[in-house]
Amino acid sequence: MLPVQSIRKKRDGGALDDAEIRAFVAGVTDGSIPDYQAAAMMMAIFFRGLDDTELASWADAMTRSGDVIDLSAIKRAKIDKHSTGGVGDKISIPLAPAVAACGVAVPMVSGRGLGHTGGTLDKLESIPGFRVDLPVEKFAELVDSIGVCLIGQTARIAPADKKLYALRDVTATVESLPMIASSIMSKKLAEGIDGLVLDCKVGRGAFMKTIERARELCGLMRAIGHRAGKRITCVLTDMNAPIGRTIGNALEIRESIEILRGGGPADTRELTHVLGAEMLVLGGVAKDPEAGRAQIEKVLGDGSALEVFRKVVTAQGGDPRVCDSPGSVLPKPKQRDELTLPPGRVVAIDSEALGIAALLLGAGRRTKEDTIDPSAGLVVDAYLGEEIEAGAPPQIMLHHSLPPGNGRIAEARAMIEAAFVIEPVDQPAPPQRTTRILEVLR
Amino acid sequence: MLPVQSIRKKRDGGALDDAEIRAFVAGVTDGSIPDYQAAAMMMAIFFRGLDDTELASWADAMTRSGDVIDLSAIKRAKIDKHSTGGVGDKISIPLAPAVAACGVAVPMVSGRGLGHTGGTLDKLESIPGFRVDLPVEKFAELVDSIGVCLIGQTARIAPADKKLYALRDVTATVESLPMIASSIMSKKLAEGIDGLVLDCKVGRGAFMKTIERARELCGLMRAIGHRAGKRITCVLTDMNAPIGRTIGNALEIRESIEILRGGGPADTRELTHVLGAEMLVLGGVAKDPEAGRAQIEKVLGDGSALEVFRKVVTAQGGDPRVCDSPGSVLPKPKQRDELTLPPGRVVAIDSEALGIAALLLGAGRRTKEDTIDPSAGLVVDAYLGEEIEAGAPPQIMLHHSLPPGNGRIAEARAMIEAAFVIEPVDQPAPPQRTTRILEVLR
Repeated sequence: MLPVQSIRKKRDGGALDDAEIRAFVAGVTDGSIPDYQAAAMMMAIFFRGLDDTELASWADAMTRSGDVIDLSAIKRAKIDKHSTGGVGDKISIPLAPAVAACGVAVPMVSGRGLGHTGGTLDKLESIPGFRVDLPVEKFAELVDSIGVCLIGQTARIAPADKKLYALRDVTATVESLPMIASSIMSKKLAEGIDGLVLDCKVGRGAFMKTIERARELCGLMRAIGHRAGKRITCVLTDMNAPIGRTIGNALEIRESIEILRGGGPADTRELTHVLGAEMLVLGGVAKDPEAGRAQIEKVLGDGSALEVFRKVVTAQGGDPRVCDSPGSVLPKPKQRDELTLPPGRVVAIDSEALGIAALLLGAGRRTKEDTIDPSAGLVVDAYLGEEIEAGAPPQIMLHHSLPPGNGRIAEARAMIEAAFVIEPVDQPAPPQRTTRILEVLR
Repeated sequence: MLPVQSIRKKRDGGALDDAEIRAFVAGVTDGSIPDYQAAAMMMAIFFRGLDDTELASWADAMTRSGDVIDLSAIKRAKIDKHSTGGVGDKISIPLAPAVAACGVAVPMVSGRGLGHTGGTLDKLESIPGFRVDLPVEKFAELVDSIGVCLIGQTARIAPADKKLYALRDVTATVESLPMIASSIMSKKLAEGIDGLVLDCKVGRGAFMKTIERARELCGLMRAIGHRAGKRITCVLTDMNAPIGRTIGNALEIRESIEILRGGGPADTRELTHVLGAEMLVLGGVAKDPEAGRAQIEKVLGDGSALEVFRKVVTAQGGDPRVCDSPGSVLPKPKQRDELTLPPGRVVAIDSEALGIAALLLGAGRRTKEDTIDPSAGLVVDAYLGEEIEAGAPPQIMLHHSLPPGNGRIAEARAMIEAAFVIEPVDQPAPPQRTTRILEVLR
């Protein structure tokens, strides 16, 4: 069947068969199907969707478009976590060593930051010497010996996804749920995992704005996973405020180490505990989430998770002293500017705007070609629902190395000020959020 | 606004504003918007459509993407006819000279054939010497002096349409009604016309399979035309059988000359009369269609339409003797093969299949690169509803210059045989079609 016939079939609401899907994905990968046909297909799928059978074929074809890492020699269960992306989301960094410390292997292939959300790779690279471009053999070796390794997607992992993702980005087809699901799952299935915990962010700062849409995405991810014989748990978590107190690469490493030392902000701890517990259940080392949570809390409290992290940092070329004195090892900004919020109650925070403010200070990329200042970012000491008193110390610190008077500083300050919706305290207080966990779909 | 934002807006059902549409069409034309973004937009428009305001902007932007021919110096009304394309549709060739003979100028920019329908340009070029690539100045001069000129679309007429049409063809977005309407209208508006009669074909052998869809297309065409200040009449005509007795370039010229001599098959005559009448009404030289029809019949009967055609052929470099002895001037096939249909009543004819059979014999193009044999084609002497008796002379003649035993001959024969649905005469006869005219929307 010609590509144009497959496009027409999908456009008219038909179901593509397995051979057709594999031919299309292979053609996109080897370039024999031009971008304009791929773009038309993406838009047709945006409108018509893919049924579970099509979706399984599509994700499998994407997975097999490149190398599938073989970790079958590793006897322990191999469980990964994936987040759909949030501002200040550094959870992978304390989570992976903690889970490994409990006896489950974590083969983690992560991405870089683009736009308002940061990337795990950029955060790790703020540790002097840390390498994320290890060969696959080294990756497998470290997953086996230490129980965890954190690398970047190589050109040989799901190349079809790399091409399609770049195309979706510029053709307004990113928001297609089956494409999001198959994009994530193809990369994860190529890692050689047995199971996956998906942290699906929901809310203003997230890709999924409503819980209904998040549930729909999780349904698709689980359908793909189950057909590939993998265990999938989805955790829907609130993304109406940034995670933890820091946004920015070195700043987030520092906060991650606080978590690995048994401390850190409550929400960041909770996410690490809950996601870790689900990974332990999937990995078969905890009988239920409560038991799993206790195990994660134990390894964070007794230093054994930090020891695994120290081994990871050392094995991946980084300076292990970061575990003991992050302040002296991590890069420092030239400037720390204060910002004081007006008095009142914080009733809403636009985390996307805070992510962009951090980006403006140097913490992120607008385009793939931008370089990052690892020391840049924000420390945010104002929580949702909190009362800010007049005369209180500044709530926000801007870390950057921009020359004084650089326009990006004023731009970032204005974005931060606008990101906080503050109301008089004599208004009735909105209900306080006590947990970020909205729903767990096992 | 970035192209991706315009695509997203349309994808989500929003209305594009005038500036956005002009920027998009201009970007497609100059190549600054890549094909993949244009393809995504085409598919989004396929699903979401364009409202009348968007459609007018889109068509106007396409019209102005190239040169707009200025015929304002010509005092007579300038009216063109466009057909959505049918098998054996040679109507433009007798129609344009007939209308010109009645005092309305016909500036006609035509296309080439692709797939199962032929193109007016290819038909005209079967007249030895006939040139369709005249410069615009010559075109305007002949429209003024003779009242008619027939040329091909130049690279400078609606280049946006040329790019978008090629792209739609390979991305399964040809069938988008607003795109069809703006494609046709942009080219016609660039000709400098005052009004247009649209022959919208309906039925099995046509692009519009149902009368509802044809009405919808006509509504869009008229909306564009009215906003551009042009008079538009749509004639919906039946396309459940080929037009006239001939399919193929030289064969259709010969049949056109029969019409210009006041003869020819009844359906071909009727289409010429009715479409011509509407053109005369739009051009203001006939008070109503009945009067217009009488004028057309008169100029076909008294030889004055043929005289205009003779002038056109001469002025465009062709051999004018074609008007007097087409058989000796037009190219001849090496071979004329007979085909006899089984006895019974013809209850259906797949004209698309007959168009493809003619193409196989050399009359058409599968791809733009194919060359045409002007003498190839079919003469079809079997009408819808007709009874074929056993032992009657062969109903179909295949004209071609293929070597004996060439596989295309057998393929064409099989297609022709399958194209005729023939039932026993003892079955009740289906209602006979007495006219091709289904509806006129003035």
